[in-house]
Amino acid sequence: MNQRQTRSKEPPRAHPFKTSAELAIARCRQLAHYSEDSDNTRRTFLSPPMRECHREITSWLQALGAKVRIDAVGNLRAFYPGAQAAAPSLLIGSHLDTVPNAGAFDGILGVLLAVALVAALDGEKLPFGIEVVGFSEEEGVRFGEPFIGSRALVGRLDEQLLNRRDSSGVTVRQAIEDFGLHPEKIPEALVPTSTLSYLEFHIEQGPVLEALNLPLGVVEAIAGQSRQEFTFIGRANHAGTTPMHLRHDSIAAAAEWISAVERLAQSSPGLVATVGKIEAKPGATNVIAGEALLTLDVRHSSNEVRIRAVDDLIRKSQEIALRRGLSVRRNVLLDQQAVAMDPFLVNHIEDAIRRAGCEPHRMASGAGHDAMILAEKVPAGMIFLRTPGGISHDPAESVALEDVEKAIECGVHLLRGLASSSEFLKRT
Amino acid sequence: MNQRQTRSKEPPRAHPFKTSAELAIARCRQLAHYSEDSDNTRRTFLSPPMRECHREITSWLQALGAKVRIDAVGNLRAFYPGAQAAAPSLLIGSHLDTVPNAGAFDGILGVLLAVALVAALDGEKLPFGIEVVGFSEEEGVRFGEPFIGSRALVGRLDEQLLNRRDSSGVTVRQAIEDFGLHPEKIPEALVPTSTLSYLEFHIEQGPVLEALNLPLGVVEAIAGQSRQEFTFIGRANHAGTTPMHLRHDSIAAAAEWISAVERLAQSSPGLVATVGKIEAKPGATNVIAGEALLTLDVRHSSNEVRIRAVDDLIRKSQEIALRRGLSVRRNVLLDQQAVAMDPFLVNHIEDAIRRAGCEPHRMASGAGHDAMILAEKVPAGMIFLRTPGGISHDPAESVALEDVEKAIECGVHLLRGLASSSEFLKRT
Repeated sequence: MNQRQTRSKEPPRAHPFKTSAELAIARCRQLAHYSEDSDNTRRTFLSPPMRECHREITSWLQALGAKVRIDAVGNLRAFYPGAQAAAPSLLIGSHLDTVPNAGAFDGILGVLLAVALVAALDGEKLPFGIEVVGFSEEEGVRFGEPFIGSRALVGRLDEQLLNRRDSSGVTVRQAIEDFGLHPEKIPEALVPTSTLSYLEFHIEQGPVLEALNLPLGVVEAIAGQSRQEFTFIGRANHAGTTPMHLRHDSIAAAAEWISAVERLAQSSPGLVATVGKIEAKPGATNVIAGEALLTLDVRHSSNEVRIRAVDDLIRKSQEIALRRGLSVRRNVLLDQQAVAMDPFLVNHIEDAIRRAGCEPHRMASGAGHDAMILAEKVPAGMIFLRTPGGISHDPAESVALEDVEKAIECGVHLLRGLASSSEFLKRT
Repeated sequence: MNQRQTRSKEPPRAHPFKTSAELAIARCRQLAHYSEDSDNTRRTFLSPPMRECHREITSWLQALGAKVRIDAVGNLRAFYPGAQAAAPSLLIGSHLDTVPNAGAFDGILGVLLAVALVAALDGEKLPFGIEVVGFSEEEGVRFGEPFIGSRALVGRLDEQLLNRRDSSGVTVRQAIEDFGLHPEKIPEALVPTSTLSYLEFHIEQGPVLEALNLPLGVVEAIAGQSRQEFTFIGRANHAGTTPMHLRHDSIAAAAEWISAVERLAQSSPGLVATVGKIEAKPGATNVIAGEALLTLDVRHSSNEVRIRAVDDLIRKSQEIALRRGLSVRRNVLLDQQAVAMDPFLVNHIEDAIRRAGCEPHRMASGAGHDAMILAEKVPAGMIFLRTPGGISHDPAESVALEDVEKAIECGVHLLRGLASSSEFLKRT
């Protein structure tokens, strides 16, 4: 009632970062057109459209007084100096590559928010410089191996990875050379020792913030992941002539286990466990399946909780197989430790979200991010933006203008908060 | 102790039909070599090896005084006359075709047992003639439609079926002509009106008799079959970023339903229910499956029990989908009524099994057989032989010599029992 009266008197004031947010979104949408495919977005490691992407972002950052280079693995590195020449620097960024049939925001919005924060400073110099980074590779599409960009910053881009080949037989090394870069200069991509921290904005790619009706979240940890393949081996038999009590049905065993996976995850706070793939052999309507292959994906911010869950589920699979006269074979696909974000940054981010007028939500990231790699060398922090419908890796991926406004506002509060923290400035 | 003493005095007497049984098995193994494939057995409708198969069986039956013809759909029909020229006849047989990579006994053993029974008469004439039939097609491999041979005997080989094409585009009609037969003579394949009954020996193709340690079973009914396809439609989401309570996981829903299918069948005597096929989309380790397609195969000798079970499982699928925020789509693949075997024959078969020194076991056939088709026109009866390991449709398919001996002995008792039954002879 009161608000309606206010409205009738004067138009509501626009958010101070409305135009900045509109610009960031418009630029994301523009960059989505730089694609290997004509009808959707696909921009993999050092593909031709990556050059156009570099060119645009470079021009935007140069206009803000930043010095831009492309490092030896194709990461865009833009330095906006601090108040003093010898000032340490804060790294802010995300990745420029995309999955096939991608949306316009996964990764690149984080880079554009870094640009927006430099713009918001409006020439003002902080006690630290800002290095905006656009990683060349996070998704792992071209070489089946993610984080090529950020691994160069922490010195983990080894010979094995450089010799890895894409589906055309081109190695990472060759791709770097083909792009006009020099593999021997990879050491120069290392994160400078004077780096105070790494900060990354990213869309949540999940439904949690939307369900809570919150624009922003602060990541406390990036969940560890266990991926395994389970094969229940029973006996293929005639579906008509084999009575129920004489069966060794691998699909029925798998079904019992899938329900156990779901129950365990539902009863363990923060745990997610997924059977995303199931294949049965021979896979005919009238034949009891002799073999069922399933995948298990378990994630949690606590390694202990995750490992215990996986162990429980292995035991459960064996118990089910034994009781039903089947056997179970297992194959470890991935075992990735959880990575904690820097508690100091988590607190500062939480405070900045609050100053932007939002309720902060502490959460684990179920997906991997460049911040996980950077955390090996520098304190890292992440801010999630609400993702409408939780939809990402899809052209329908979107972000709300209001949430981008809040993200910029939060970022500005965070920069100012860190700039006035003597503890932060002593961190190198 | 007593037996051992006996043994030490004289060798155990061989079963009177030992040689006949050995011959039937040897002939099955011989015929398995007449195949479209060089390294395993495949003999589909009117394929070249079918001609060799006809030639051999014809020679064996002619030697026994039978008059042999190949009818217009390629069924081998051999008539061994009764005591009088006008005597009615008893049809005994099974099918000559096989699945790919077949065993040596499915179908053809029933034909060879009919041959063995005629041989066992040693020229004696019964009050009825015996027509041995080797059906040209039961498995449905070549045209994707089973029972072409037996359907001709009951007048159900219609234009639609004659125009059906195999994978090379050849119609049933053309295949008949290519084999040198005449489609216009199909009406002459009809079962004669003077036919008293149809009798079929067949391997069980299941584990029931073996589990009961019994050589022979009598089929009371051929189970009806319902086959349907179910698709649970949920939402594909990121396996790492979607908390358990915000998922619409189609594999988890499918798993819950598969367990319900199994429970229902386990708690309903004689019911078998199978999910033999499951496919999930997108089917990636790190993506919650948005869609899961499953097949359901339900069989029971009572149509009422079967239909109620299917209805229960449909309701269950809907309840699971609703509770989980999914939908479920359904597609009927097959709805086949149960077929009762003739009670008079069942009793006589049971008696004959007993006279052969075995405990008879009344059972339903979970698989379809030619007897199901013949039952439309004449009283039909079936005798099952124990199948080691329940293994069939596989080169490892086998049969025990002792069980074949018992089957011949049982057949001879059955023929004599029917010959002395005035009720049976009045049946035409």
